[in-house]
Amino acid sequence: MKIIALDSSGLVASVAVLEDQTLIGEYNIQYKKTHSQTLLPMLDELKKMVELDLDSVDAIALAKGPGSFTGLRIGSATAKGLGLAMKKPIIEIPTLDGLACNLYGTDKLICPIMDARRNQVYTGIYEFLRKEGMPVSYKLVSLLPQCAVSIDEIAEKCNSFEREVIFLGDGVPVYEKKLADLMKVPYGFAPAHMNRQRAAAFGILASDYYKEGKVVSAADHAPEYLRLSQAEREKQEKS
Amino acid sequence: MKIIALDSSGLVASVAVLEDQTLIGEYNIQYKKTHSQTLLPMLDELKKMVELDLDSVDAIALAKGPGSFTGLRIGSATAKGLGLAMKKPIIEIPTLDGLACNLYGTDKLICPIMDARRNQVYTGIYEFLRKEGMPVSYKLVSLLPQCAVSIDEIAEKCNSFEREVIFLGDGVPVYEKKLADLMKVPYGFAPAHMNRQRAAAFGILASDYYKEGKVVSAADHAPEYLRLSQAEREKQEKS
Repeated sequence: MKIIALDSSGLVASVAVLEDQTLIGEYNIQYKKTHSQTLLPMLDELKKMVELDLDSVDAIALAKGPGSFTGLRIGSATAKGLGLAMKKPIIEIPTLDGLACNLYGTDKLICPIMDARRNQVYTGIYEFLRKEGMPVSYKLVSLLPQCAVSIDEIAEKCNSFEREVIFLGDGVPVYEKKLADLMKVPYGFAPAHMNRQRAAAFGILASDYYKEGKVVSAADHAPEYLRLSQAEREKQEKS
Repeated sequence: MKIIALDSSGLVASVAVLEDQTLIGEYNIQYKKTHSQTLLPMLDELKKMVELDLDSVDAIALAKGPGSFTGLRIGSATAKGLGLAMKKPIIEIPTLDGLACNLYGTDKLICPIMDARRNQVYTGIYEFLRKEGMPVSYKLVSLLPQCAVSIDEIAEKCNSFEREVIFLGDGVPVYEKKLADLMKVPYGFAPAHMNRQRAAAFGILASDYYKEGKVVSAADHAPEYLRLSQAEREKQEKS
């Protein structure tokens, strides 16, 4: 099966094309341009480079959220447009699951953190559990599903497992110093080639979702913000 | 420091730009085009997308080999050209080290295998060793430095460590069935988003090399083939 994967939930714009166990191509940018300037041109460039026939694609995988509200909307609009035009389903992957998937094969806990502003992070706690059978393979499992909490709360939760933790995500540079105070278990950070969203990782999770029938139509797809937008919040406060 | 990283040692063509702990951009293709059609256009595309000022680059990192002879020569020629024009040094990274670096954070042994034809694989055995200090970080260490051997030999060597092994690289689809017979310890395979060369991983290793002064001039750089080319072999056999 062939999947186009997209992510624009955070600072990275990322597109990938996967076919079964092969990553045919990926293009990732973490640069000050907005995703509306990058995501579609990157997909177009990749499509040309790997001579992708859109009819051969089975589904479109997407980081469904949480993340930057604008970023998620750009990703969703792109995926919806593609899905409607190509008549292909969308596979919605929780953003933090996709981030955690960068660290396949680790025995440590994985804690992705994204800066959610207002003293919160989008985060979760994950581990890879060994499946039965040989060759050995691992399944990503969440010990704490994605949520919006303070850095103090997530650090305390990590400490409670009494296991080494690897942090990753754009929340790391923001909260690195605070974590040094808060962490009571051994902890470290993923290096630059694995510390941000990669559409390829979302694509890998998406193949499992697809096999389990976890897809939605382009019409039904909507991003998951986890929190109210600023406008909604202000409206609520007024009423 | 800013690094341009290149890899064309195997089936993948890959370019990346890194600045300190940030992967600014990467572009990876595993498609039937030849590297002479892909590598420079990909770098040019990435350079434009991230508005890269070549004067701001400190060094060019490169998979120095082993690998496809033609692929290595295309990579070396590109890096040499850039290095000479930009007056910047080249950082030569052993191909198998770069591949192993995809699996940062694992506690398993890492065994990258590339199909070297003539019943051999380019391979090595690696692990990540915890460095002293907090936050925790890991250093890639080779238990068997890169070499060209038969799949039987490398499987036997892996078995001798009596630890779980993760295989990756383009040798996996070629030798997957044979490994099922040969392996006596638990073993598995890296998933698609981490199972091939990524210039970004070479770039990460290159920052350490750079700090240690392990650089060469563009004029001095030469790829490392590990074996004689077919032409050299035939000449030797005749003499």
